[in-house]
Amino acid sequence: MDKTAYFNNAATTFPKPEEVYSFVDKFYRESGLNSGRGQNNSTSKLTQDTRNLLLELFHCPAKKVVFTPSATEAINVILQGLPITDNYNIYISPFEHNAVTRVINHLQGLYKLNIITLSVNEKNLTYDLEKIKYQFAENKPNIVIISHASNVCGVIAPITEICTMSHQYGSINVIDMCQTAGLIDTDLSSNIYDFVVFAGHKTLYATFGIAGFICNGDIKPKPLIYGGAGFDSANPNVPDTIPERYEVGSQNIMAIAGLYAALSWIKKTGIHCIYAKEKENHSKLIAVLSEFDNIRIITPSDVADTVGVVSCVFDSYSSDNIGQILSQQGVEVRTGLHCAPLAHKFLGTFPAGTVRFSVSYFNTDDDFAKLRQALELICENG
Amino acid sequence: MDKTAYFNNAATTFPKPEEVYSFVDKFYRESGLNSGRGQNNSTSKLTQDTRNLLLELFHCPAKKVVFTPSATEAINVILQGLPITDNYNIYISPFEHNAVTRVINHLQGLYKLNIITLSVNEKNLTYDLEKIKYQFAENKPNIVIISHASNVCGVIAPITEICTMSHQYGSINVIDMCQTAGLIDTDLSSNIYDFVVFAGHKTLYATFGIAGFICNGDIKPKPLIYGGAGFDSANPNVPDTIPERYEVGSQNIMAIAGLYAALSWIKKTGIHCIYAKEKENHSKLIAVLSEFDNIRIITPSDVADTVGVVSCVFDSYSSDNIGQILSQQGVEVRTGLHCAPLAHKFLGTFPAGTVRFSVSYFNTDDDFAKLRQALELICENG
Repeated sequence: MDKTAYFNNAATTFPKPEEVYSFVDKFYRESGLNSGRGQNNSTSKLTQDTRNLLLELFHCPAKKVVFTPSATEAINVILQGLPITDNYNIYISPFEHNAVTRVINHLQGLYKLNIITLSVNEKNLTYDLEKIKYQFAENKPNIVIISHASNVCGVIAPITEICTMSHQYGSINVIDMCQTAGLIDTDLSSNIYDFVVFAGHKTLYATFGIAGFICNGDIKPKPLIYGGAGFDSANPNVPDTIPERYEVGSQNIMAIAGLYAALSWIKKTGIHCIYAKEKENHSKLIAVLSEFDNIRIITPSDVADTVGVVSCVFDSYSSDNIGQILSQQGVEVRTGLHCAPLAHKFLGTFPAGTVRFSVSYFNTDDDFAKLRQALELICENG
Repeated sequence: MDKTAYFNNAATTFPKPEEVYSFVDKFYRESGLNSGRGQNNSTSKLTQDTRNLLLELFHCPAKKVVFTPSATEAINVILQGLPITDNYNIYISPFEHNAVTRVINHLQGLYKLNIITLSVNEKNLTYDLEKIKYQFAENKPNIVIISHASNVCGVIAPITEICTMSHQYGSINVIDMCQTAGLIDTDLSSNIYDFVVFAGHKTLYATFGIAGFICNGDIKPKPLIYGGAGFDSANPNVPDTIPERYEVGSQNIMAIAGLYAALSWIKKTGIHCIYAKEKENHSKLIAVLSEFDNIRIITPSDVADTVGVVSCVFDSYSSDNIGQILSQQGVEVRTGLHCAPLAHKFLGTFPAGTVRFSVSYFNTDDDFAKLRQALELICENG
């Protein structure tokens, strides 16, 4: 039990599947060349194969994959690039991350926007579809942005129902799947999903440095970053085609190799099997936390509708304090606001924040035993 | 001689030092957590140590390092963020990459700008400092952007002389060191260098996914990307401090580990020793190419003022054609415009482009033998 018990998987999953480490090392040693910047084909082929695996995972072979270095950058490319005008009604979930809210704050400096929060029941933390229907009728949605699962409390949003409704008003729908891609089997083939963001290093079990979005290709945000695309070099503008319009500069082939290996692992293991294992670990986590009276767990009443992310408040301790004690005991969690102050305001845990525990496919019984031991120490001293 | 003879190091250096591969693999397996998003300290320490090694390499301990995923993004953050107004005089070298010229093209859509090319003698490819002095006197420079070394023909710019002159007019000076960082020992401590861009995966011998800029910290471009910084989360804006203002989203700790290992290798090996070895390989390259009458080498008359990047035109062959034949013979080069159409216009090789050969510290005598053999085949058939 000397290994750290890692419960910060919502920040980045750790460890990765062995295949990811070994393939990244082998591919980068043998073929770490520049995609589209020479005669070399193995990197270009790997990049295309990785796009195809993503489209297969999301059951949407006709859509397009754009790679970006981070999900934050993907969200910026989309939101800063959309043709926004004054008086737009932009709907967001109450669980949005600063990667969304800070971009919106920036856009509010440029346009007069009406930012509306999608209706969620504060007691059971479920989306209120009836009220949302009424919201849309009252203020026609121009853009709807939804975290598929909250990085604070794990609530899963009913994206199909919401996007079907908003699409009828011509809304541009943006889904943030940072906490769900590769974990929740999602069919993105419908055109109600205009832009869907993924982060390689989280639930996709790949490395840092690769993320992006999946799009229909009909709405073309203006580019955020200008530079060389490795072809069409005489053009003073970036190419007009997707994904090249957004993929300027050298692509991170090392991280793409990691995503390729991770997607192959997900395919081999089965997304439903991965999800079942995470839910099993989620239940084990809730069981351990529930043993302690002075821990308040913030979670929807129906935990079936959540991913393995649990926020807690400890009686008489600040969250940072708990984080430090747990860390000394070899238990890694995350404390504070988790870059999502809006979610904490909604949950009533602002500004103190929470102690967040998040599991993955790879948590072991040793991890839960170590967590129980550490919590017993805190409660004895408490 | 079965290994590919790799002469495309200006696109990305290959191979990397063994230490880079092994450290990345080891660090990411053992400590691949999220910097600043948990109690974990090893990733935060590695990030700070890497910044310090960069400042040591550039002899500027008082300056600041900002990490970005690519040099293209670094240039965009700087140029799109500077307080530009109509009628600004922006000077660029005739060798600028599309990472600069396409951003400027975008800015020209927003402002009425006067884009002026720094004077370079077309015959010997040297910067004409007397004429540049006159250019600056005639049109006061507001921003000066210089590729420290051309990615097409290797010409090294006299950045100290030019920036000293332009600084007297209050110009903001931006240096692109993508082809020179870690190769040419450069003292950046002077405040005449406002922003200096580096790319990890090129002459710094690190991996893809890590680049950035070094700045004085007094001029603060407005952010290009908005998102979470892992602290100060309640603030609706990104933090105002440097580097946090520009480093939103999860940092790519795997690539930072690669840069750390590469900088440690450069320090241990010695930058002057690395440069001497590249120049030796550069001479070997020129010697092989000079054996063939039908190859025209585009290079400054004084090759002492160039890095190991050589552009060539082959009589009666297109550059793409040569690239394909060489690739079949196991020789990897890059052909075309190398994302720098401006440079080719200046060199008279637009739009056909050139065959570019670029060496690194790691080229071997086998590589040159293989190149000679392949070129003999082309010339025999020619």
